[in-house]
Amino acid sequence: MYTEMTPNGYGISIEKGEVLFKDKSDFQDVEIFESRGLGRVLTLDGLMMTTEKDEFFYHELITHIPMITHKNPENVLVIGGGDGGTIREVLKHKSVKNVDLCEIDGMVIDASKKFLPTIACKLDDPKVKIYVEDAIEFIKDKKNVYDVILIDSTDPMGPGEGLFTEEFYTNVKNSLRPNGIVVPQSESPFGQQEDCRKVYKLLKKIFKNVAPYCSPVITYPSGYWSWAFCSDDVEIPTFETQLDEDRALEIEKQCKIYNSKFHKGVFATPNFIKELTK
Amino acid sequence: MYTEMTPNGYGISIEKGEVLFKDKSDFQDVEIFESRGLGRVLTLDGLMMTTEKDEFFYHELITHIPMITHKNPENVLVIGGGDGGTIREVLKHKSVKNVDLCEIDGMVIDASKKFLPTIACKLDDPKVKIYVEDAIEFIKDKKNVYDVILIDSTDPMGPGEGLFTEEFYTNVKNSLRPNGIVVPQSESPFGQQEDCRKVYKLLKKIFKNVAPYCSPVITYPSGYWSWAFCSDDVEIPTFETQLDEDRALEIEKQCKIYNSKFHKGVFATPNFIKELTK
Repeated sequence: MYTEMTPNGYGISIEKGEVLFKDKSDFQDVEIFESRGLGRVLTLDGLMMTTEKDEFFYHELITHIPMITHKNPENVLVIGGGDGGTIREVLKHKSVKNVDLCEIDGMVIDASKKFLPTIACKLDDPKVKIYVEDAIEFIKDKKNVYDVILIDSTDPMGPGEGLFTEEFYTNVKNSLRPNGIVVPQSESPFGQQEDCRKVYKLLKKIFKNVAPYCSPVITYPSGYWSWAFCSDDVEIPTFETQLDEDRALEIEKQCKIYNSKFHKGVFATPNFIKELTK
Repeated sequence: MYTEMTPNGYGISIEKGEVLFKDKSDFQDVEIFESRGLGRVLTLDGLMMTTEKDEFFYHELITHIPMITHKNPENVLVIGGGDGGTIREVLKHKSVKNVDLCEIDGMVIDASKKFLPTIACKLDDPKVKIYVEDAIEFIKDKKNVYDVILIDSTDPMGPGEGLFTEEFYTNVKNSLRPNGIVVPQSESPFGQQEDCRKVYKLLKKIFKNVAPYCSPVITYPSGYWSWAFCSDDVEIPTFETQLDEDRALEIEKQCKIYNSKFHKGVFATPNFIKELTK
């Protein structure tokens, strides 16, 4: 049995099947195992990263909200996300000419390519450039480069820790082109409220417009997750926002969750999350 | 450790503290135990019913969406819901003159009053009439009585089984006044897809307007839950629906989730749930 408990004494349990991959990289323990109900499961340092059956929640949410809100995303950066799920979603957008993936741990990429083919399937696409580097260094000299940046990181501990600092977010912002949008994953609004509060406090120091949007992610701590829509130039979507409905429909056809109504509705935030992220 | 697994081999685990109540009623095993992170926990036949810390998701969602959509709900019926959480939420609405609670198991009511005081706190309110009866019989002779009916039942097995039939839903519908709204809990759209599909198929045979709305419920199977908005006379809310903003604000002030934007946004349903419930 695999069990990941939150510090609050509850969490998810999964009947563990065959272990397909298990090794220690320079950064963390990497493991992929079979499960009956969730397909293959990727964990890092024993913490849930993704499963074949519920990965669509996380990957659709982090990707399509900023990608469709942006009017013409051509150059995209994914930080972390070595499993390739976010890259796969980004490449559904026809406007994209280039995606950089900056993942610190090459073992995650290699193991995902081998054992999570439905998730990592687009990592060899010619539009993708992979940098096995620390994003903290990678981003420092990038100025006016990206239209959309997706920070698909681990929690603010271990290798992900430096991705939750003022300096890092400032460098990320400086690497954006005009009308650029950044979306970091921003922890659980129920199971990790203190981490979540800190992330938003920091993001609001850097970006003019910051708002959370949330969704279930079945296998994450507490099962409820948040992402932060951040931009200086682009307004937070509302019910009244005019999206490009043709592009949205093109994405909807390829998705389990995303549609343009969902896109606008997801920013109608529960009171306690507004309070937590204010 | 308390663990509730879905038939698919994953589920929630909770560090179990002191058992406060444990007995067998005529219908089921009833247990209330302490937990570190979720407060007190109520289980029936070993299945999660509610916890002090996350009960607001379920009780706010089942109650305020139909109650605010209805223009003047005066007479309300809650079926099941012996823990009292739904009753507590219903009584936040000033228009309410009477709430009937029809719960088959008196032991759930008594144990909740004693050990879950923050949830069961309004069960002795003078506006509440409690019927310890089988709702299948209770509803048969009620015609043109209720403005809103909330079916806060267990799963379609055990004592809850008869609450998922065409005959029962037809009798529920016949007990509504004009412009009446019914909301049954409708299982997990991720963890119990076959149950969910069946419920909607049935509801659509009975009611003209039927639509799911979903939210995380942290401790329920898969952590993602659905409710069915059902009415012959009242349309499904959309972004454009005019709600009574004064009443909505009054409720928002007393809630952790509910606000009128959330109310409209929650019907912007993910594609896979539209497909599941069509």
